[in-house]
Amino acid sequence: MKLIARTYDVDSSEPTVLIHDADCADIGVQEGDRVNLAGPKPMIVLVSHSDTVIEKGTLAMSESVALKCGIHDGDVINVTYASKPDSVRSIRKKMDGEKLSKEEIRSIVEDILENRLSKIEISAWLTSLYINGMDISEIADFTVAMAETGDMIKFDSAPVFDFHSLGGVPGNKITPIVVSIVAAAGIMIPKTSSRAISSACGTSDFVETFCNVEIDAESLKEITQEVGGVFSWGGSMNLAPVDDLVIKVEHPLGINPRAQMLASIMSKKLAIGATHLVVDIPTGAGTKVPTLEDAKRYAKDLMELGERIGMHVECAITYADQPVGYAVGPNLEARECISILEGNTHPAAVIEKACDCAGIILEVAGIPNGSAKAKEILNSGEAYRKFMEIVVAQGGRPDLKSEDLKPGKFSYELRSPKSGYVHAIKNKDIVAIAKAAGAPSDKGAGLLFAKKKGQRVEEGEVLLTIYADNEAKLKRAKETAMKYQPMDIEGMLIKRVSPLTAR
Amino acid sequence: MKLIARTYDVDSSEPTVLIHDADCADIGVQEGDRVNLAGPKPMIVLVSHSDTVIEKGTLAMSESVALKCGIHDGDVINVTYASKPDSVRSIRKKMDGEKLSKEEIRSIVEDILENRLSKIEISAWLTSLYINGMDISEIADFTVAMAETGDMIKFDSAPVFDFHSLGGVPGNKITPIVVSIVAAAGIMIPKTSSRAISSACGTSDFVETFCNVEIDAESLKEITQEVGGVFSWGGSMNLAPVDDLVIKVEHPLGINPRAQMLASIMSKKLAIGATHLVVDIPTGAGTKVPTLEDAKRYAKDLMELGERIGMHVECAITYADQPVGYAVGPNLEARECISILEGNTHPAAVIEKACDCAGIILEVAGIPNGSAKAKEILNSGEAYRKFMEIVVAQGGRPDLKSEDLKPGKFSYELRSPKSGYVHAIKNKDIVAIAKAAGAPSDKGAGLLFAKKKGQRVEEGEVLLTIYADNEAKLKRAKETAMKYQPMDIEGMLIKRVSPLTAR
Repeated sequence: MKLIARTYDVDSSEPTVLIHDADCADIGVQEGDRVNLAGPKPMIVLVSHSDTVIEKGTLAMSESVALKCGIHDGDVINVTYASKPDSVRSIRKKMDGEKLSKEEIRSIVEDILENRLSKIEISAWLTSLYINGMDISEIADFTVAMAETGDMIKFDSAPVFDFHSLGGVPGNKITPIVVSIVAAAGIMIPKTSSRAISSACGTSDFVETFCNVEIDAESLKEITQEVGGVFSWGGSMNLAPVDDLVIKVEHPLGINPRAQMLASIMSKKLAIGATHLVVDIPTGAGTKVPTLEDAKRYAKDLMELGERIGMHVECAITYADQPVGYAVGPNLEARECISILEGNTHPAAVIEKACDCAGIILEVAGIPNGSAKAKEILNSGEAYRKFMEIVVAQGGRPDLKSEDLKPGKFSYELRSPKSGYVHAIKNKDIVAIAKAAGAPSDKGAGLLFAKKKGQRVEEGEVLLTIYADNEAKLKRAKETAMKYQPMDIEGMLIKRVSPLTAR
Repeated sequence: MKLIARTYDVDSSEPTVLIHDADCADIGVQEGDRVNLAGPKPMIVLVSHSDTVIEKGTLAMSESVALKCGIHDGDVINVTYASKPDSVRSIRKKMDGEKLSKEEIRSIVEDILENRLSKIEISAWLTSLYINGMDISEIADFTVAMAETGDMIKFDSAPVFDFHSLGGVPGNKITPIVVSIVAAAGIMIPKTSSRAISSACGTSDFVETFCNVEIDAESLKEITQEVGGVFSWGGSMNLAPVDDLVIKVEHPLGINPRAQMLASIMSKKLAIGATHLVVDIPTGAGTKVPTLEDAKRYAKDLMELGERIGMHVECAITYADQPVGYAVGPNLEARECISILEGNTHPAAVIEKACDCAGIILEVAGIPNGSAKAKEILNSGEAYRKFMEIVVAQGGRPDLKSEDLKPGKFSYELRSPKSGYVHAIKNKDIVAIAKAAGAPSDKGAGLLFAKKKGQRVEEGEVLLTIYADNEAKLKRAKETAMKYQPMDIEGMLIKRVSPLTAR
């Protein structure tokens, strides 16, 4: 039927039009059905209906929908019933616990990407994936579909290495160190990272404090072929773009179905042109992977999946019962990371983790005694020189020093309420405090530990310092710290029975 | 943080506000999270974000949200992070296949009703229900929660009977006949019906052609206590109102989880004050219940559920391999229904089905030989007199005659392409044709069969006549009929082996 278009300057995340109840009945559609708009550029959109905010005979749409179909306010548009995309039937199949074909998976991925599925449908898809899962061959098809619906980078030579951390542990600033060591050893490693989704500081959030991370696919390939590595932000390329759309529905549900998680990681590696991949699986309380059993399962999945899509995958299960290193937050993590590369003295944890991960890559690439070799490259200053080459190639200052990175002006020292030992540092609480302080968008925000797990602390001693770029957020972070008490201090004989803590 | 409100005259089905990306980061929310709007009437709403259509420092909302929280365009509003309702956690539990407590189920029902859950969350809920299901005690809690969150009618005396058809078969116009017979026997039966959701004509769609169906709870109780029964529209009372909200999400997914379906039916019966219920389960190809096994499972579920909520339930599994009677569509069904009550000669099917269903009710109420007694009440004219009492009580004309109900002016006769026997009448195609003709909103639209299943037909003879209120819809219906060929005519010996059709 013919309806008069009314356009509104409000965006909606779904391509929806609003139609009067009576017109809906006439067209034969209900809320959540679809209609075809026969504008200059025909388009299928979702229907919302109302009998109050819209007049009979009219059709309300956002400017963005109007623009896409070339419709202007006041145009008379022919509106007809459109059937659901076939992928809705495939979603129903997954609800019914059936296995999907490569073509069915591909069409779901394409329809999400092209905004042809509603949030209701995507939510049903993710819930079905969460409950009914996918077998490894389906996940491989899913991975390839997610990769191929975005940009695909091809390097002129192989091997191309990549490194990935499952994340979930705060303060994990090893990526630029790993990349610098590996590239210094003459191995290509075009590493893309993400910004924080639910964490306090993603790799790109702290790397962008000292160089540009928004590098397009072309430059990523050039820099990698010239200096051996990059540490860029994956979001500035069109790698497995459907992932970002899915996250918008996963987030409110608080789920990350195994099939989706695996395909999400591996599709980006496939798209970047990686032939070999090492995955860091931080394991410990308060991370995504609480136990060693979980970690082994992830490792097995990732390796099997790698085999199916033709990528050599190895995994490093790493200790993550507390934050990695002493700093959490963009500038603070950047400072700790660069300081280690500069060769300054630091407690062993970050260095060891970085060298162990880099070491696995070196060994896979055929260099024996990888971890020792990695440490050698770090200690000799080769890694630092490579780091500076990459920084400069990514538009950073050639005279960059770790001390350039300053914590926020406002700070608060959290002191121990009693004497004892640091019994636990709760990852989730640390993230909450750093975020309350403004991380990752406020670059000076974050926190610096004075004590780590197992260390002795006296009553009134500083446990950690919170930094913020403004006073209001410092106050908020301080309140969060008071509420959560992120570090457990224990010292009473009655509760501690190990030789270490008994006195 | 403080943001300036901008209101827009567009409705959105969810209470959502649009916030700039940078402000979202500052508040600590992402798409699909919630914020508290500290307006004159504080309210929690969902967040959508954008960095294009909205300026930093502002907050866009629909007029309906603005109205609810007393906010005006230009107001400065404090916007803070709000946590998800607890019911989201319960939805996660159901995703994980766990059993929910009475309180958890109640809070999900309340949060859907109060618009506190997003479509994404409701979709995940329904998908989980579809896949993981509920046991009968959960369904009972669900039923009671759905009933108690709406109006509850209490009659001064018992028993109060109700009658329900699972539907799915076109032309099923027996409800007013059943109600009239039962009420004529002195039994209270306050029957509420629905309008068509996906069918061509719900009971209320044809009853409203001859009397008012929009009766409030007060009048329903009065009329029932005075004349014994009503046939009103359930939608004009606030019975289990959450059901309507759920349907909006079920419909696009094309699912109706067993738990939701059972709770939806039974909560409305509980709310209307029924103590006894007879359920008609139309069973046959192209209906909701394709096989006898399915029908028995529904019957068992309904009876067990009845027991748990204190309602006596019996079921009638009825033949539904083809439409019931000869007419489909509002005026046409009303005419057939009233004509039967008037005592005119009709083929047996509709009369038999109505008397069998009414008969079960009579027997449950203690009247022996129910079906024969029902037929007696119908044949004696008692049912007709009761019908007219109810019609008048519902504002209908006291001189109502079946022939007052006229089919649409435009008609088309579908003729048999060959000689043979009516082998099948496809329910779904019949519905599609009637809807294409304009049913149920165009009251004259529908179709009238000249032949039913098993009857002999010669080439060129009329199979059915399509009626419409305007020419365009008649054309559309005719095209639909051509496309679907809703009646199979078979006559060749080689394909028919029963004694009836072999010649």
